[in-house]
Amino acid sequence: MTTKTPVTFQHIADAHKRIASIISNTPIVESSLLNKWLGHRILFKAECLQKTGAFKMRGACNVLAHLSELGQLPKRIVANSSGNHAQAVAFAAAHFNIPATIFTASNVSVVKAAATEYYGAEVLKFPTRLQADAAVAEAAKEEGTLWIPPYNHNDIIAGQGTAAYEALQELQNVDLVAAPCGGGGLLSGSLIATRELAPHAKVIGAEPLMANDAARSLRLGKIVGLEKPAVTFADGAATPMVGELTFPYLQQTDGFYEVDENRIAYWTQWLQHLLKLHIEPTCAMTMEAVVQWLIEQKPSEPQTVLVLISGGNIAETMMRAVWQEDHLQTLPSLNVSTAQEAQNLAS
Amino acid sequence: MTTKTPVTFQHIADAHKRIASIISNTPIVESSLLNKWLGHRILFKAECLQKTGAFKMRGACNVLAHLSELGQLPKRIVANSSGNHAQAVAFAAAHFNIPATIFTASNVSVVKAAATEYYGAEVLKFPTRLQADAAVAEAAKEEGTLWIPPYNHNDIIAGQGTAAYEALQELQNVDLVAAPCGGGGLLSGSLIATRELAPHAKVIGAEPLMANDAARSLRLGKIVGLEKPAVTFADGAATPMVGELTFPYLQQTDGFYEVDENRIAYWTQWLQHLLKLHIEPTCAMTMEAVVQWLIEQKPSEPQTVLVLISGGNIAETMMRAVWQEDHLQTLPSLNVSTAQEAQNLAS
Repeated sequence: MTTKTPVTFQHIADAHKRIASIISNTPIVESSLLNKWLGHRILFKAECLQKTGAFKMRGACNVLAHLSELGQLPKRIVANSSGNHAQAVAFAAAHFNIPATIFTASNVSVVKAAATEYYGAEVLKFPTRLQADAAVAEAAKEEGTLWIPPYNHNDIIAGQGTAAYEALQELQNVDLVAAPCGGGGLLSGSLIATRELAPHAKVIGAEPLMANDAARSLRLGKIVGLEKPAVTFADGAATPMVGELTFPYLQQTDGFYEVDENRIAYWTQWLQHLLKLHIEPTCAMTMEAVVQWLIEQKPSEPQTVLVLISGGNIAETMMRAVWQEDHLQTLPSLNVSTAQEAQNLAS
Repeated sequence: MTTKTPVTFQHIADAHKRIASIISNTPIVESSLLNKWLGHRILFKAECLQKTGAFKMRGACNVLAHLSELGQLPKRIVANSSGNHAQAVAFAAAHFNIPATIFTASNVSVVKAAATEYYGAEVLKFPTRLQADAAVAEAAKEEGTLWIPPYNHNDIIAGQGTAAYEALQELQNVDLVAAPCGGGGLLSGSLIATRELAPHAKVIGAEPLMANDAARSLRLGKIVGLEKPAVTFADGAATPMVGELTFPYLQQTDGFYEVDENRIAYWTQWLQHLLKLHIEPTCAMTMEAVVQWLIEQKPSEPQTVLVLISGGNIAETMMRAVWQEDHLQTLPSLNVSTAQEAQNLAS
């Protein structure tokens, strides 16, 4: 299924046509307080309110809707994931009446497994993630079985691009688009959509410093993976390696920021508080990239920024960890000393 | 300003006409997972997405909009609060171009004080809440000064009733309406609106067991206050005493539930997770009243329930405390043994 053919804007427009009736056109929200404090307008595309709680729905639905168009739907679908991709695949498979099996490690949280099963998929648990990965590879060999990967697939990239596509059709004069980077599907799709719909806008990505394989890959000009599993609040961006299909798009971004854990927690608390949304650390992280970009670029005019809020499925242990320190005592600001002080405290 | 004249449905309809252009008509949301687990349809009116993050906007705006109609706007507004009422009064006063001063204890959180000041009010801090209360009473004596109370005022009750009024005009066949009870403004207004718009629906209230002055007052048939300040996750319902204007409406409810801290934390985690909204423990508490009512009543048909989500302003220490235990391991259920087991664990 995966080829090196570049994903184009037309692929995203086609994807949107296919999936628009299945997914939610999520709202765009903002905080007047945050806008005032930063002196710029920050708009958030709230994919945490997407069905299954994350943008991953878009890619998974596009893969199957495209195959349905071609009359090539599989008999069975498999995927390996313990998170948002599992729920997205389960939902999309049920929509197309195809049995789905998710292969996961046995330490998957009760609530995530229950949600995946609710969407109609069978959840097979294995002692370790490596064993689950081996089992899915084996299962995918059966005839009529489709293994839906989380990001390294042109229809996934095009599907994830529909979030920025929707937002940029609704918004005028966006100067900056920012997205988190795990495997790179959302950031790649956002870049392709933005280059067409807001050609003057810059596109930046954000990654946890503790899982900075994409940033290191960009510096080296070739894909390198994490040497060991990352421990970060931004677990949605802890992917060990970007995809060969996504990497070329990441190379076209106008900035890429590595965010430390302290700032990830800081923005998770603040965005949950200001937007009244239960958003994942992975997307809150992106706000720090926006702040760093604004500090660096010192734009003379107030900027309009679009931030892609990727999802809202947060494990209970993560919520506890994120709220352990008290970050709401320090108001958001573009004052370099304040931001750097916070950075220094963390390092 | 306060009189014993009962608040009628017409007062709520009038209030809504006055404030509709100032407030947000907040969305009604639901979780298909929660509906499946409980076997009933639970609809949430998301006042956490109201301007200033809570329903309190409705009452404060109605007080001033009514005075504006009468040509009786004051020269200055004062209020004593460290929470949602302060922000609501600040916002409403700014809307009507009247200077406002909020009297609060000096331990008010940085973020709440900043928000109140952002809405244009002056924040005066005093060493203790008692000193703040004394100071506001003194300030209110000045000519042309209006002291806006948080709940014991007919225009506040009518204003708070506009949340249920909006929801019940949008929804059909609601069987049960549930609201939290602090001073009783929201619950009273919800009761009046429901009796007219959904006369067959039952109306129930919820209060923290640790701040059960309303429940004790209802049992005694007269208002009694808390003997000492309450410590509860549901800080919005920790009010020491209900109002003489709200109490008669509380007496007309079809059920009143005292919720322990364990179940308040349980529902806060679950509703934040399922609805992807940053909702206050005070409103999450109400979900336990719904569950207890459903367990008691054993309705033979699936019920449609409206829950008023009162707000989303949560202090950072509260978030930390609410997420300290791991409640997402136990799925929501109407299974009596499960619910009681959770209750027993807490006691």
